[in-house]
Amino acid sequence: MSNTLLQNCPPIILASNSPRRKSLLELIDLPFKAITSSVHEDFNINLKPIDFAKHYANLKTLDVAEKYPKHLVIGADTIVVLDNKIIGKPVDENDSKAMLRKLSGRTHTVITGVSLVWQEKNIIDNFNEETKVTFQKLTDDQIQYYIENYHPLDKAGSYGIQDWFAVCVKKIDGCFYNVMGFPLSKFYQHLTKIINEN
Amino acid sequence: MSNTLLQNCPPIILASNSPRRKSLLELIDLPFKAITSSVHEDFNINLKPIDFAKHYANLKTLDVAEKYPKHLVIGADTIVVLDNKIIGKPVDENDSKAMLRKLSGRTHTVITGVSLVWQEKNIIDNFNEETKVTFQKLTDDQIQYYIENYHPLDKAGSYGIQDWFAVCVKKIDGCFYNVMGFPLSKFYQHLTKIINEN
Repeated sequence: MSNTLLQNCPPIILASNSPRRKSLLELIDLPFKAITSSVHEDFNINLKPIDFAKHYANLKTLDVAEKYPKHLVIGADTIVVLDNKIIGKPVDENDSKAMLRKLSGRTHTVITGVSLVWQEKNIIDNFNEETKVTFQKLTDDQIQYYIENYHPLDKAGSYGIQDWFAVCVKKIDGCFYNVMGFPLSKFYQHLTKIINEN
Repeated sequence: MSNTLLQNCPPIILASNSPRRKSLLELIDLPFKAITSSVHEDFNINLKPIDFAKHYANLKTLDVAEKYPKHLVIGADTIVVLDNKIIGKPVDENDSKAMLRKLSGRTHTVITGVSLVWQEKNIIDNFNEETKVTFQKLTDDQIQYYIENYHPLDKAGSYGIQDWFAVCVKKIDGCFYNVMGFPLSKFYQHLTKIINEN
């Protein structure tokens, strides 16, 4: 964060236990503590992908914000969307393999919903960020190697753009960090606006 | 690397001393040793940006490959291009500030030239990768904070997309790792082809 912003920043809580989100907030020098919400995603809920991400980001954030009204609470939800359908996290290695085969050689969209809630100031700010991701054609050998060595069961779409899988991503169009799970640049714009106006 | 590829891979040398390039090759599990070439870039040379990157990638790689004919030698050269002109590395903090002001709110292109040379097999493979990078409008406060805390004097264009500066990058179109200095995905395609055919 820039110095001016840091001086005026309220205490921040990240409503997430994701190690990737934590490392991204650390990357931009943001002081925060992490408190996990008790909200769990239900992929059977009847919502469009874009509404799904917003809905769960909001729910997770409000769940924590209720208990910390003086804090600025940040929550996020990242989904992978192919042919307008949400691809969740794989349930096992076979599911992981099937997901990567489905995404191979094609372009999908990663959507992250972000919520910023500061109860004391009556601020609820929600936004989405979308990035298009194009995979190379993956061989079975590559998929096998990746699953065996990187165990991507905790990741939406079953891949991490920030690990070995980098070789399988031909190009992206949009924010890279959004694909990792948190759209740093758009978030920073929103955070700056909130802090400067309060 | 996938297991099949690893088994057939000759010993690899990275003809670069860049800590970012080293960390990227480590990210994709590639065993290598780094040997710096003695080639230095001359930004006054009369070459188009796209030829400049290819020329120096080639020169650096051949310089090392001559001494290691049994190794597959990899070299790269990354430049930042705005309005068809190359923006080099800043010479001091004022230059750094001027560069970032020039790039603010605009889209530039990052070009990396890559060479793979395996003398013993008579292989010389050159390619370029291009990524478009769009910056947010930067405030003087942000530029000041970045230069003071991150000292980007060793970086083409005076920024690192993988550090705090992430908040200043609105979007990219192409390969993220190319902007960091090495296009992992395209490189992996070329490497696979070379190993499979030899």
